[in-house]
Amino acid sequence: MAEAEPPSSLSRCLDGESWETKDVLREEISRCELFQRSSYELSLDQIRDLTAERLHFVLKLPLMQRHLGDQVIGRKKGFINKSMGITELICSADMATGVKMGVVCGLYGGAVINLGSPEQVERLYVPVTELAFTGMFALTERGHGSNARGILTKAHYEPSTQEFIIHTPCEDAQKMYIGNAMKGNYAAVFAQLIINGESQGPHCFVVPVRDQYGVMWPGVTATDMKHKEGLHGVDNGILIFDNVRIPRENLLDKFGSVSADGRYSSPIRRKGDRFNAMLAALTPTRLALTVQAMAAMKLGLIIAVRYSHSRRQFGPKDQDEVKIIEHQTQYLRLMPHLAATLALTFTTRYTAGLMDDALCQGEDLQSNRPLQALVAGLKAYSTWANVACLQECRECTGGMGFMMENRIPSLKCDSDVFVTFEGDNMVMLQVVVRELMMQYTRQFEDSMVAGLIRNWTSSVSDSLRTSFLGFSVDKIGDLNFLLKALSYRERVLQRSLAARLHAKINKSKEEFFSAWNSCLHHVTSLALAHIHKVTLKLFALAVQECQVNDDRDLLTKFCLLHGTSLVYQERAWYLEHNYFSPGASRQIRSQLLELCKSVKDDALKVVADFNIPPCCIQAPIAGVAKPGAEWAFYPQPQSPTTQPHTQQRATSKL
Amino acid sequence: MAEAEPPSSLSRCLDGESWETKDVLREEISRCELFQRSSYELSLDQIRDLTAERLHFVLKLPLMQRHLGDQVIGRKKGFINKSMGITELICSADMATGVKMGVVCGLYGGAVINLGSPEQVERLYVPVTELAFTGMFALTERGHGSNARGILTKAHYEPSTQEFIIHTPCEDAQKMYIGNAMKGNYAAVFAQLIINGESQGPHCFVVPVRDQYGVMWPGVTATDMKHKEGLHGVDNGILIFDNVRIPRENLLDKFGSVSADGRYSSPIRRKGDRFNAMLAALTPTRLALTVQAMAAMKLGLIIAVRYSHSRRQFGPKDQDEVKIIEHQTQYLRLMPHLAATLALTFTTRYTAGLMDDALCQGEDLQSNRPLQALVAGLKAYSTWANVACLQECRECTGGMGFMMENRIPSLKCDSDVFVTFEGDNMVMLQVVVRELMMQYTRQFEDSMVAGLIRNWTSSVSDSLRTSFLGFSVDKIGDLNFLLKALSYRERVLQRSLAARLHAKINKSKEEFFSAWNSCLHHVTSLALAHIHKVTLKLFALAVQECQVNDDRDLLTKFCLLHGTSLVYQERAWYLEHNYFSPGASRQIRSQLLELCKSVKDDALKVVADFNIPPCCIQAPIAGVAKPGAEWAFYPQPQSPTTQPHTQQRATSKL
Repeated sequence: MAEAEPPSSLSRCLDGESWETKDVLREEISRCELFQRSSYELSLDQIRDLTAERLHFVLKLPLMQRHLGDQVIGRKKGFINKSMGITELICSADMATGVKMGVVCGLYGGAVINLGSPEQVERLYVPVTELAFTGMFALTERGHGSNARGILTKAHYEPSTQEFIIHTPCEDAQKMYIGNAMKGNYAAVFAQLIINGESQGPHCFVVPVRDQYGVMWPGVTATDMKHKEGLHGVDNGILIFDNVRIPRENLLDKFGSVSADGRYSSPIRRKGDRFNAMLAALTPTRLALTVQAMAAMKLGLIIAVRYSHSRRQFGPKDQDEVKIIEHQTQYLRLMPHLAATLALTFTTRYTAGLMDDALCQGEDLQSNRPLQALVAGLKAYSTWANVACLQECRECTGGMGFMMENRIPSLKCDSDVFVTFEGDNMVMLQVVVRELMMQYTRQFEDSMVAGLIRNWTSSVSDSLRTSFLGFSVDKIGDLNFLLKALSYRERVLQRSLAARLHAKINKSKEEFFSAWNSCLHHVTSLALAHIHKVTLKLFALAVQECQVNDDRDLLTKFCLLHGTSLVYQERAWYLEHNYFSPGASRQIRSQLLELCKSVKDDALKVVADFNIPPCCIQAPIAGVAKPGAEWAFYPQPQSPTTQPHTQQRATSKL
Repeated sequence: MAEAEPPSSLSRCLDGESWETKDVLREEISRCELFQRSSYELSLDQIRDLTAERLHFVLKLPLMQRHLGDQVIGRKKGFINKSMGITELICSADMATGVKMGVVCGLYGGAVINLGSPEQVERLYVPVTELAFTGMFALTERGHGSNARGILTKAHYEPSTQEFIIHTPCEDAQKMYIGNAMKGNYAAVFAQLIINGESQGPHCFVVPVRDQYGVMWPGVTATDMKHKEGLHGVDNGILIFDNVRIPRENLLDKFGSVSADGRYSSPIRRKGDRFNAMLAALTPTRLALTVQAMAAMKLGLIIAVRYSHSRRQFGPKDQDEVKIIEHQTQYLRLMPHLAATLALTFTTRYTAGLMDDALCQGEDLQSNRPLQALVAGLKAYSTWANVACLQECRECTGGMGFMMENRIPSLKCDSDVFVTFEGDNMVMLQVVVRELMMQYTRQFEDSMVAGLIRNWTSSVSDSLRTSFLGFSVDKIGDLNFLLKALSYRERVLQRSLAARLHAKINKSKEEFFSAWNSCLHHVTSLALAHIHKVTLKLFALAVQECQVNDDRDLLTKFCLLHGTSLVYQERAWYLEHNYFSPGASRQIRSQLLELCKSVKDDALKVVADFNIPPCCIQAPIAGVAKPGAEWAFYPQPQSPTTQPHTQQRATSKL
């Protein structure tokens, strides 16, 4: 069987440094009975129980036990990259299990570790790693999701008993969408810390919710939110606190503490900065979302690409019907998503590396605003890319793609929430642009106006240097051309946004919110332009570093395709700015079609080299047999470039 | 309550001629216990039973009984338009019930009525209208979905017993995705009719599947396909025939009959034409899909628009947070879909009218190819528009939009299949273009080459007459400008496609399939360009005909928005063709932003005037209270233009 073959060099390259971790997990998941069945036939309670069992199984794996130990000790080299590898594999097996693990270890664990003291970690998180209890994360309220700093839950300190009193003052203050709310034991709850009647801004408190027997802590109510579009295995609920008393020691006090007699102190003076610092600690969890989206894309694509190479429909008169991958629209719909998935593979790895470096050097993530902006932007880009990718996968697999047996529907429904949770994408894009604007004004601190003028001039010369006037037509296929085009767009959008905001705020004295809001379309365009550029740059970097010639050639084609597809999407902008001539724009389209066609057969090798175990792929149309769904089974397609009747992996070029 | 108010003039205008039918159904559905609960908490069997009960309830309504009587008699004035109104209302209440009604009455009923004799209608369909049994429609096979004429099921005639023997010769011939397969009694089965060893092409046979007690007809097997992404209430399954014997009288024989002694005769000589004629009879069912998509869009938009006018998040410093509809990106995401929904309202009504006229004049639909192409194009455009619209609605309602309580997830999952079923959208677009190419070559029957040349010349002068060179900037806001732009694009794409195909096929002697396939991206662009133009044209026509000034003013804004949004989407093409200057293109963007902003408050009135009963809206975030989901409830927003604390409907401008 193909599965028994050793992984190819491309497979190793796509796995990256954490390949050993991933290989161990692949084996464990493939052997574990809990991951051999799909869950859509179960009731809500059954799915939740199964997910809890799956999570328990994962957390007690020796590999995970070691990893959680590293998390507790902290600053272990390569920790983030390994976490991302683990997240990807668990999410491939079951998205709900991955998300629930993110809640318990990433969000609850991350809050305790990053916002708490060593004593608090020992007392409040180590038992989680020992499977004694589980945690949840309660920031979002009914009234405040995106605008989290406006939360209304209150925490009063009572010196006489040395307790905090956590209280939900109104309906809008109810903690909502809380994952693990119906099963978890402790919650990291954000509340406005009130000392002597004055709020010190949101702080994080660990509140007991229920004991191991399910008995609720006095004053805490958990309401089940029940059915969602997807992620049925995650028990989301509402937490309401009626003057709940918790010991003083349960305030996670890294960025703000209260003495026994009720005096507040914090290493950070401004309330806003304090809250930012707290949220920054959660940056790795946000990057994990990009990995989750990427895992879903890989699964969708392996299913759609294999089926497209098996299924035949229409063809030349009096001849066999052709494989549907041969239809121009079919490869045009799927190949750019495959290229984007590869770009995300390298981009997330690079970003995780940046985070690992920062943490190893003892740097606090909150001070690294560019990194936070990058992670926010990637979250938005990748989760939207995933929605678009899975929709195409679903449509390109026709009726088969609508059947739960073939996995794509549950992938779609599970991952749809990524675009709005843990930071709505529209808000994420604004985070990116706040940082880009900050960088921009920092360049010209002395004189904003002078800066603007200087820049507009250089923008014009830029345009002449790299626009269609400056290159001969055959250079459009050049990666440098594509990179320059994306950079140019980012720069121009950045400058023009700065100029518009400057005119509105400094000259016309418009209120900031309204000025910003009237530029929101511009803001989101700039943020995406920035992230597009980053993904292409990091993809190109990874290609350069690839040591195996055949792999590098293959990745080069997909890298060109990714860049071409990004530039093609924005060709109207380039035409508007005279960066492209109409002829160049048409050429970009031809190039896109050509590249998609040229990689459609390679796609089979690439999806094979994602190295996803059959129990994760699940779909019979992708060659994974399933009892009772014989009607959906299509054998794994052979690579068109190899001999028929030999295994594709064994005879592929590498 | 607002619901007790008489419908506004706009509401009547949106309902059209069938407003009385719709009003009756609104009342019936609102009163019926079966439609008061949502079904996502039920098991698959329970949902299917509930759907069957709902359908039974609908079919036995006096209004429906009269309508089914009209269907049987045939050629009743306004029948199609009324059918579309009924489809819209039933689908608003429950998509699965609407789809199941489409299977039983539209597809099975349509097949018997259009392909059968009066005797067959009396024997095989009238009992369905009397609720004695139900039917299904079995065309699609495992191996042939899009390419339906390649089906493999066989029907041999046996003169000695005067029976047809229906047989599934291989796995790929199994009838798949058949709606009502687990409950229905009779199936309209398409099979290759074999007479003396020779196939006469696909014909339609009514095959008994199970009796009223559920006992299967000898040789028939039905396999449950169980779980899908959505439409859980529709029992899709696989039908397999093992030499199933049916009487000779069960061949629906309008386009081909077999005499007792086995002689075949048909009024249509060519096999391909015969099959086309049979499929053409199903055109009304295809138009119903557009109506179903539109119903889903209306529901998604009423929920998203109301929530956007209730929910507040972010705002100017030290002031109240603003309603999220005030965020530029929010209105930019929702308003174009609202405009498109209005365009579809008028376009489907017009198309249904064309069909009604044709049928009243005794015209057979198969001879009206332009109408078939229009319906095919609308199906593709509307179902994609729906997917995009519901995705935005889901994202614009944040976490609330992910909760089943708020209806959007089930709308998404139910209607997702529309893009591939009853004609994959990519195939539908090719149907449109085959017709456009036919029209094109018919123009120049004598000399294709001469025609091409003549046209290219006139294309150039066209461009001069209507392009950016010819109009002053303020005219971009003009509906005529937008209409001309869309027509121009269609014409140029049509000509250039004709030229490309001519060069490939006539000059380079390329095989048709490969030539066509290499132009598929061009083909799909042309088809959508055509449909875009049609929707704007028919929207504009409806605006002209609107008698109430305020309504006309309001609709004019949305019509402009629809046109602007369509042109904006394709601005790259206009720039490539020098039809727009860069300045004009930027102006289109500003105009889009301005128009979206200008209608965001009107949107509340428009969605109210969709006149959808609360039991269909269901979503607590849109002001429909629901026991057990108080956490999701937001009161219905007041129109910002009226006084607070007065009912919006009562105080609106009309």
